[in-house]
Amino acid sequence: MTKNYPREVRIIEVGPRDGLQNEAAQVATEIKLGLIERLMAAGLRTIEATAFVAPKWVPQMADAPAVMAGLPARGDVRFPVLVPNLKGFEAALAAGAREVAVFAAASESFSQRNINCSVAESLERFVPVMSAAQTAGVAVRGYVSCVLGCPYEGEIAPEAVRGVSERLLELGCYEVSLGDTIGVGTAASTARLFDVLLAHIPARRLAGHFHDTYGQALANVLTALEYGIATFDTSVGGLGGCPYAKGATGNVATEDVIYLLNGLGIETGVQLDKLVDAADYIYAALGRAPAGRVARALLAKRNAA
Amino acid sequence: MTKNYPREVRIIEVGPRDGLQNEAAQVATEIKLGLIERLMAAGLRTIEATAFVAPKWVPQMADAPAVMAGLPARGDVRFPVLVPNLKGFEAALAAGAREVAVFAAASESFSQRNINCSVAESLERFVPVMSAAQTAGVAVRGYVSCVLGCPYEGEIAPEAVRGVSERLLELGCYEVSLGDTIGVGTAASTARLFDVLLAHIPARRLAGHFHDTYGQALANVLTALEYGIATFDTSVGGLGGCPYAKGATGNVATEDVIYLLNGLGIETGVQLDKLVDAADYIYAALGRAPAGRVARALLAKRNAA
Repeated sequence: MTKNYPREVRIIEVGPRDGLQNEAAQVATEIKLGLIERLMAAGLRTIEATAFVAPKWVPQMADAPAVMAGLPARGDVRFPVLVPNLKGFEAALAAGAREVAVFAAASESFSQRNINCSVAESLERFVPVMSAAQTAGVAVRGYVSCVLGCPYEGEIAPEAVRGVSERLLELGCYEVSLGDTIGVGTAASTARLFDVLLAHIPARRLAGHFHDTYGQALANVLTALEYGIATFDTSVGGLGGCPYAKGATGNVATEDVIYLLNGLGIETGVQLDKLVDAADYIYAALGRAPAGRVARALLAKRNAA
Repeated sequence: MTKNYPREVRIIEVGPRDGLQNEAAQVATEIKLGLIERLMAAGLRTIEATAFVAPKWVPQMADAPAVMAGLPARGDVRFPVLVPNLKGFEAALAAGAREVAVFAAASESFSQRNINCSVAESLERFVPVMSAAQTAGVAVRGYVSCVLGCPYEGEIAPEAVRGVSERLLELGCYEVSLGDTIGVGTAASTARLFDVLLAHIPARRLAGHFHDTYGQALANVLTALEYGIATFDTSVGGLGGCPYAKGATGNVATEDVIYLLNGLGIETGVQLDKLVDAADYIYAALGRAPAGRVARALLAKRNAA
């Protein structure tokens, strides 16, 4: 069977932000910077560095200005940061951010419970952010959460995802990342989503952001690749838990995705061995073994050698 | 995109044999039987129960006769057992086995190092087993290991897999299970294998046996399904390590495969919740958390409820 996969895939490494944000113990700023350094050494060129959110809500990201101050001045690496509103944007801009990410949910219940407003209200909140970003020449990426299911509503209609995604693109996001926040999607629901979305939105404006909570992430990535999706958000070592099922795994591991892409002959510019170094580094700091399968297997091999 | 997946899939549960065989601590026979009972309660109808191999090589399977004696008399459930040679077959037959499994490697180096003979010699060894099985009316399943890679040789040519598979079918195996023993295959190598095999062997004579060592198992199962493969070997909770990388994961978890198949609307007759009960039972006995993602996620949810 011949498949029309993309020839190149762009990996957005989200470990330092999405991956670490739910860690209960505070990770030192220098460890976060050490991780980012190793991710760059592995060839990653877009690394979500931190978030400018209220420390009350996400204490792990309270050191956002210090992380930004510690980033290397590298013109070839992008460091997007998450901002929930204009205040966060202004703080990010003041800290030197050149790219930000905003987020909305595809699920009304999730939006209400997570950020206490409707989906439409959350999108309105981004109008001044987009305007300020345009003035400052800052690129904006959009996240849509719960695209394949919601912890409160269950199934989510692809049309709801389409609505939010189109609105984020209209507002000026250069790309929309489709998040299976709770990892419940399968190859079938992933296909149904892209069947709807790609009738309206070009594949190059969409990214896949899959969680491996139910082990489906790589099958979903494979499905998305068949639809021509060529950008994926991944997390080194599988950093990131599932806040709705403590003990479950979260973000798909960058190494597992790179292993798949290497197998398919798709270029990423990322070196697997150095990625395993980065996973080893951060999990040693966290005091546990990586969640990702490739990191576990290759570290086990190294230890045996 | 429309895919021609099979409407039904048959799951061969290999946890009690392939899954447990590498456990260092002896698992009590009654625990093994308790596991098998729970697997049946989950709807599994083919459960590889044990192996009649030299206890010196696989001490975990030394209680094979006792496991067989403890199995329920259920005409609707098949309990294949692994046998390496005629001696093992005779012991299995004496213990009441109605189905056995034989194994050969697709890799010469693996065959030499694992069973100390060439692939051709190992196949010859099965001639008297097949003959005795035919006389006794015992069904024989064939395993081929290293179909997507070998720990000693690296890549394995699909033609080598074809040769061994055809020979096992000629010898009288009703089905050949294709084992990615070290879990190195990806969707690409899985597709290349089936492109070759299905030109010579009908899909209904082949089963997929994927390991999740590098996280690729579900993407490989998805690929195999697209080729019409409708039988998969899986292991409850992801029981089974990788003997070539201690600490790495092994067999793909039955629950993770069932979750995928449920999503695709493919019938299996297996109930996910009861499967998680079985995973919970055996991992509690082993004193650690399941390797499988679905079991981890659903057990975490139960604990939170």
